[in-house]
Amino acid sequence: MTRWVYGFSEVETAESFCDGNWESVRGLLGGKGANLGDMTRIGVPVPPGFTITTAACNAYIETDGTFPPDMLDQVSAALEQIEATSHKRFGDATNPLLVSCRSGAKFSMPGMMDTVLNIGINDTVVTGLIALTDDPHFVYDSYRRLVQMFGSVVLGVRDEPFEAVLAKYRHDRDVAEDSDLTADDLRAITAEFKQIVERFSGRPFPDDPFDQLRLAIEAVFRSWDGKRARDYRNAANIPHNLGTAVNIQAMVFGNMGSDSATGVAMSRNATSGEPGLEGDYLTNAQGEDVVAGIRVTKPMSQLAVEMPALYHQYESIALALERHYRDMQDMEFTIERGTLWILQTRNGKRTAQAAVKIAVDLADEGLISRNEAVQRISPEQVEFFLHPSFTPASKQAAFDGGHHLTTALNVSPGAAVGVVAFDADLAAEWAAAGRTVVMVRPETKPDDVHGMLAAEGILTTRGGRTSHAALVARQFGKPAVVGANELDVDLSERIMTVGNAVISEGDWISIDGTTGEVFAGQLETRTPDLENPALKVLLNWADAVRDIGVWANADHPADAELARSYGAEGIGLVRTEHMFFDTDRLPIVQRMIMATSPTERTEALGQLLPFQRRDFVGLFRAMDGLPVTIRLIDPPLHEFLPSHDDITADLADLKIQLLSARNLAEVDQLLTRVEAAEHLLHEVEALREANPMLGLRGVRLGLMMPALTRMQVRAIFEAAIEVQRTGVVVHPKIMIPLVAHVNELARQRESLEEEAAAVMTEAGIDINYEFGTMIEIPRAALTTGQIAAFAEFISFGTNDLTQMTYGISRDDAEKAFLVKYLEEGILDRNPFASIDETGVGRLMRISVEEGRAARPGLEAGICGEHGGDPESIAFCRTIGLDYVSCSPPRVPIARLAAAQAALDNVIPSDLSEMAVPV
Amino acid sequence: MTRWVYGFSEVETAESFCDGNWESVRGLLGGKGANLGDMTRIGVPVPPGFTITTAACNAYIETDGTFPPDMLDQVSAALEQIEATSHKRFGDATNPLLVSCRSGAKFSMPGMMDTVLNIGINDTVVTGLIALTDDPHFVYDSYRRLVQMFGSVVLGVRDEPFEAVLAKYRHDRDVAEDSDLTADDLRAITAEFKQIVERFSGRPFPDDPFDQLRLAIEAVFRSWDGKRARDYRNAANIPHNLGTAVNIQAMVFGNMGSDSATGVAMSRNATSGEPGLEGDYLTNAQGEDVVAGIRVTKPMSQLAVEMPALYHQYESIALALERHYRDMQDMEFTIERGTLWILQTRNGKRTAQAAVKIAVDLADEGLISRNEAVQRISPEQVEFFLHPSFTPASKQAAFDGGHHLTTALNVSPGAAVGVVAFDADLAAEWAAAGRTVVMVRPETKPDDVHGMLAAEGILTTRGGRTSHAALVARQFGKPAVVGANELDVDLSERIMTVGNAVISEGDWISIDGTTGEVFAGQLETRTPDLENPALKVLLNWADAVRDIGVWANADHPADAELARSYGAEGIGLVRTEHMFFDTDRLPIVQRMIMATSPTERTEALGQLLPFQRRDFVGLFRAMDGLPVTIRLIDPPLHEFLPSHDDITADLADLKIQLLSARNLAEVDQLLTRVEAAEHLLHEVEALREANPMLGLRGVRLGLMMPALTRMQVRAIFEAAIEVQRTGVVVHPKIMIPLVAHVNELARQRESLEEEAAAVMTEAGIDINYEFGTMIEIPRAALTTGQIAAFAEFISFGTNDLTQMTYGISRDDAEKAFLVKYLEEGILDRNPFASIDETGVGRLMRISVEEGRAARPGLEAGICGEHGGDPESIAFCRTIGLDYVSCSPPRVPIARLAAAQAALDNVIPSDLSEMAVPV
Repeated sequence: MTRWVYGFSEVETAESFCDGNWESVRGLLGGKGANLGDMTRIGVPVPPGFTITTAACNAYIETDGTFPPDMLDQVSAALEQIEATSHKRFGDATNPLLVSCRSGAKFSMPGMMDTVLNIGINDTVVTGLIALTDDPHFVYDSYRRLVQMFGSVVLGVRDEPFEAVLAKYRHDRDVAEDSDLTADDLRAITAEFKQIVERFSGRPFPDDPFDQLRLAIEAVFRSWDGKRARDYRNAANIPHNLGTAVNIQAMVFGNMGSDSATGVAMSRNATSGEPGLEGDYLTNAQGEDVVAGIRVTKPMSQLAVEMPALYHQYESIALALERHYRDMQDMEFTIERGTLWILQTRNGKRTAQAAVKIAVDLADEGLISRNEAVQRISPEQVEFFLHPSFTPASKQAAFDGGHHLTTALNVSPGAAVGVVAFDADLAAEWAAAGRTVVMVRPETKPDDVHGMLAAEGILTTRGGRTSHAALVARQFGKPAVVGANELDVDLSERIMTVGNAVISEGDWISIDGTTGEVFAGQLETRTPDLENPALKVLLNWADAVRDIGVWANADHPADAELARSYGAEGIGLVRTEHMFFDTDRLPIVQRMIMATSPTERTEALGQLLPFQRRDFVGLFRAMDGLPVTIRLIDPPLHEFLPSHDDITADLADLKIQLLSARNLAEVDQLLTRVEAAEHLLHEVEALREANPMLGLRGVRLGLMMPALTRMQVRAIFEAAIEVQRTGVVVHPKIMIPLVAHVNELARQRESLEEEAAAVMTEAGIDINYEFGTMIEIPRAALTTGQIAAFAEFISFGTNDLTQMTYGISRDDAEKAFLVKYLEEGILDRNPFASIDETGVGRLMRISVEEGRAARPGLEAGICGEHGGDPESIAFCRTIGLDYVSCSPPRVPIARLAAAQAALDNVIPSDLSEMAVPV
Repeated sequence: MTRWVYGFSEVETAESFCDGNWESVRGLLGGKGANLGDMTRIGVPVPPGFTITTAACNAYIETDGTFPPDMLDQVSAALEQIEATSHKRFGDATNPLLVSCRSGAKFSMPGMMDTVLNIGINDTVVTGLIALTDDPHFVYDSYRRLVQMFGSVVLGVRDEPFEAVLAKYRHDRDVAEDSDLTADDLRAITAEFKQIVERFSGRPFPDDPFDQLRLAIEAVFRSWDGKRARDYRNAANIPHNLGTAVNIQAMVFGNMGSDSATGVAMSRNATSGEPGLEGDYLTNAQGEDVVAGIRVTKPMSQLAVEMPALYHQYESIALALERHYRDMQDMEFTIERGTLWILQTRNGKRTAQAAVKIAVDLADEGLISRNEAVQRISPEQVEFFLHPSFTPASKQAAFDGGHHLTTALNVSPGAAVGVVAFDADLAAEWAAAGRTVVMVRPETKPDDVHGMLAAEGILTTRGGRTSHAALVARQFGKPAVVGANELDVDLSERIMTVGNAVISEGDWISIDGTTGEVFAGQLETRTPDLENPALKVLLNWADAVRDIGVWANADHPADAELARSYGAEGIGLVRTEHMFFDTDRLPIVQRMIMATSPTERTEALGQLLPFQRRDFVGLFRAMDGLPVTIRLIDPPLHEFLPSHDDITADLADLKIQLLSARNLAEVDQLLTRVEAAEHLLHEVEALREANPMLGLRGVRLGLMMPALTRMQVRAIFEAAIEVQRTGVVVHPKIMIPLVAHVNELARQRESLEEEAAAVMTEAGIDINYEFGTMIEIPRAALTTGQIAAFAEFISFGTNDLTQMTYGISRDDAEKAFLVKYLEEGILDRNPFASIDETGVGRLMRISVEEGRAARPGLEAGICGEHGGDPESIAFCRTIGLDYVSCSPPRVPIARLAAAQAALDNVIPSDLSEMAVPV
């Protein structure tokens, strides 16, 4: 007979069923159930209860809604165990046991699964409870909550009718809060609630406590397969076949008077990572009140004043749990008439900043190793440090200008600027249309997640640090401010008011999730700041373990300085042509391209030389002592000329003007312009290509127009000499792009070495330089064994290599079919985001192996966008690349990802030690 | 001491020096020298002589013009041998030996190298010669020839001054030919020639016979390194480091009276291949007169009348030489006072038709094996059978209209139509500008080769079958007519006249190299005829030995029939989209593309279905019993719409018309057209791609627009069922293009199999079909191991595969850099002509190996243009492809090339047996 049910005290039985594998226990009992069992085992005060397994859920779903045989019998038996422990009886009129029914999947999915509290009350039990507690207000409050939750969660009745009844009573009694209603009111409300349930669900509220329990369990099972849960799992990459467990637990009550309370607290600050309990609670309330954000919660510091002994008990439990789970904990608690109960613990969600701070602190405290700290941080979390913040100046101006609307809870850091959308659908729609949106809601629900994901930032007027909005925003890295109760949102008028300020839907606002400030209008954001001390420590630990270099792609001296400050160990790619697009240079470049004689071309190149040299001087200075890899001109020349379409349009326009010219002088002048446009059109047509990506660019251009690349090499060497004379150590690496055949490289290199030698001879100074090539054409990868004879280094241009290996023109394809391929699962990942290891990766492996066979020690790197992608970095490491080169802001991410790749591969034993129960 | 000189009778010494390797002997002594030695050995009457080795030439060139030490001593010793044999002495006044000095490289290079005859005459020797021969006319004729040849060939004096002197004497004496001048005239001319030599070369004609000889040898050496020789070698793919040998041979004289003659004859007809001596001769002349085409020669049949005994002696020598060399021979002969001497023999150049006929005849005669016959014919020669000929109707019309200008020697078959260019530079210039040119010259010289190569055909007014023009034209497959002495070419007036007809430079003419006819104007040419009986025999022999299939690419039933008649064993590629371009279909296709609703699209597809079905019915009928591989739609959809440029131009035009509209009705009508154009532009812009080759096409289109490929599959199966019902055996193979990832194929195939099954179920008939894919994206080649799970066959699309592997957009590249790459030797071959084995070929090899590892017996073919290229066919065979598929006209070429590849690889012993001395 399958065992479907495990008591919290039977966690060892479950563990032995799972062969001691805690991951399997979590799979079987869900994260919450496993932890409740685990906490029971280590002596944390947990109300007694039991867990129905995820296997039961899966069986229920597979049979389209039938409980597995014997499950209900096992539930009854487990219930008897609780009765025995608590000395109460489920459904008993004199000493009744009430239970909660909560979902608990392997991975935490906040708000996605449904909870029913107070199961076991009916009209008979009520009488017994009143006799027992002498607190009819509490009892009827519990009863009406049961009916309401059961109605909405189990039977699918909407909240509005319930809320309307409560509102009516509050109005009639002229009170602000439901808790101010009388016991009689609550009894009457309960009765009205029952009518609502029957009217809207078509079935009466079940009186039998066992019926209540059975239906609640079914509701939890069903909710696993609901749309909201599926959407969340899709977004969070959680498999759909795990199932959820159900936890049935004896109720404890935070709403039994002023010596009762309920709350949620983290063992450390989830936003900053600072040590110390951080959370919210409410006295005389049930847990849902805290999470739902309906009442304004009190901070945990208040509990230390109100109930100091319990606060300290809680503090020591939190420390014990942290030590046990070796991570920051997120705990739910209830105080029932002076007794503290822990209802749940789990690893706490946290901001990226907190994650880094906590990991570093835990390592410093000796709870985890430094390598574990490195592995605790995801590259995406480091990315959050790159989120923009508002410039102090713009913030000051906003304050001075009276644009500051309010300051509320700073639950997810970062600055967001967008137009206000008051619902999730509109937010998603506007975002899809390319608008940047801040989603504003009184509070958020799981139904809103698509809008939250589409928005730049989230603002709610209710809720606390642990509200749905706060949790989701943190998880997906969206800046968020919650609990901004000064703001009055009118959803029917689609406006939001505070004081005299009125913000309409579509107006711009700016929110600062780091400070909690909200502003009208668009504030200026500033460049990322990676100076966070904990992050610096963590990245240094990462550097200690990683075994692949991290370089940066930088075209300008400022980029290079930034990259170096982020930890770049060299420049892996300077795109020289980017320098050509500056407004003062482009006309010269165009003159060079359209030159009708070698003299004219030489002249234009002569004008470009000082510009290029100046850029290189700056780059060399910034990278003093480190290598600077300079790629010679790569794009087709037509990119420097106006587009064919534009010229054609101009011409058509000029001809229309000609028709309405008023005199000969005007005709003459227009004709001159027509001729100029026609000349330009002719040039552009001569350079026009059906598939420019595969056309005249890169080394091909260097071979067809040798003076151009020779000018570039001259600029490089003149700059190197100039800088070296000032004591800076220069190490230029000249990279020749788009080589398909070894002869292209051999010829081009020969010509360029000649130029280099000439410059060095003129100056009488030797420069430590190298020549190398991009590997970005499949044939180059297949013939690196030949190419290596003429290349001291190679660097994979995986953007182009992917385009050619996959036969996909990236820009065209993403619009035309790539997105649909990913949606429909034809491709499981975008090959432009992570290296396609099977195809492109195989070519890279061939290239490195054969290149090094021909030239031992051949330096190999990557400078495509993949160089900043963690998965690709791990792959690059396995094929033995010397370094990855990425955009400067991704350098810290790459440092971490590289370290994690090394740890994944090199220290698996360390990893298995880390598999703690969380 | 190195041996630089070998007597003709010492051929065995040379052979043993070369370890018995006759190829090395030819390398050492040159083709002519080796053959003279070989002929001497087998008893052919060859004037005595010796050969200075190619090694001496190379040593001379390497030292910038110094004879290797001891060479001249060895020459003197060899000369003494000749003196001993001939009982004459070099430079002797009483019984002088005269010698010729001829070049002879390993490979025959007609006209490229220089020859000097009659070496050894000076004023003293003349006296002795006259005493000896009693023929002062002959003696002074010989003397003036020596001075003239020595002057022009050795000392670089131009021909014109010599010719001017001769012309003056002919005028003064009122005679037509030089031979009609008196001995005194010739003596006077000789004296004037010596003055010319001294004036123009700055040095006197050397009196010392040894000086003459030494300088002549140097001239031959130098000429190897001359521009003409280099150009020829570049065109004919002959290495530059072979060097030329020099042959010194006792003179025999064809100009010693009417019992003397000289000529050149082939052992079989070089144009038709028919047996029997075929050539030209002149009585009382020296050899150069025949080759130069200055005098009108007599056919060999005339010799049978004039000197029957000698003719028969010559005939039997020709037969013996054929038997010895196992090939048709091209022999130079001289008859000196009734004695026949063979001066040279070599394998005769021949037309493609003759080559085939001779190879088949030689095999039938038992001189060579059938496999050797197959190997004797180059694929290019089979290609000549494809040269167009004039339609009988157009020829008749030309005769009737009086456009027939003349009929002369048909020396290189095929019909050519072009505008007349009277010199090689102009011919090359016009051809480069895209005009088709017939080059017309009095005679051609080596300097003219670039023009001949550029021209469609060649016409000369002088020369015979063995003239320079005839040889070069045959070698490069240019239709040619020579010796058209009825035509009068006036180079200064740039006109050509015959009778009343005047053809100016730039006028159209048509020449028939198969018949020798010349016409004014443009005649119509007809499709190729491969019905040549000898070719059919040869190709059947080829089929017997080849081990790779030859299929054809055919889009229309007529193509399929043609391909089958040429021997195709299947259709390897039907490009279904070609059917879309028919004028009655294109509007439907456009409607389908621009459909705004699925209904509209379905409707358009429904209209296309019967068209596609009808095409397939025709193809299946034509290929009864053979496989038909149908590729589903491949190109991007914008190819079926008007071009962006055209629409933009239309729009601009319409807007200008709007400005000058005369009334509102016109405005209204124009606006409607503007709107239509704007709508079209919008559609085209939506489909526009930066790099369409790598964009939305092939299987991507099939996945994005499934109804389209499903319609195609429906058409295929409906057609197959219709045809199978009539008893025809159908075997459709459905080919899905542009697969990069196995999932694309899996999805598309699933959808298409569904459609196929539906059609077969509807009809209640099963069709023997297969699904497969193109391998044309590098990633597909790298993942064929996965792809093979969903493909019963693969077919390499090497055009696209080369484009992507090489990163070259073919059409763009050939203009932009590929031609220059080839010119400058950056690439040694065009990867679109022959498969790049190192890169593309490696991917193909990986693909086949891994595909077959995953699916044993996976059928693999090629349907790119390379499928018709002999080198690529050989490569395809080595990687184990099952078949090559090429355009129908290339099927015979592929059959031959495939057989040769099999012989090259499989029967190397047979090959070595074949290495006969030629």
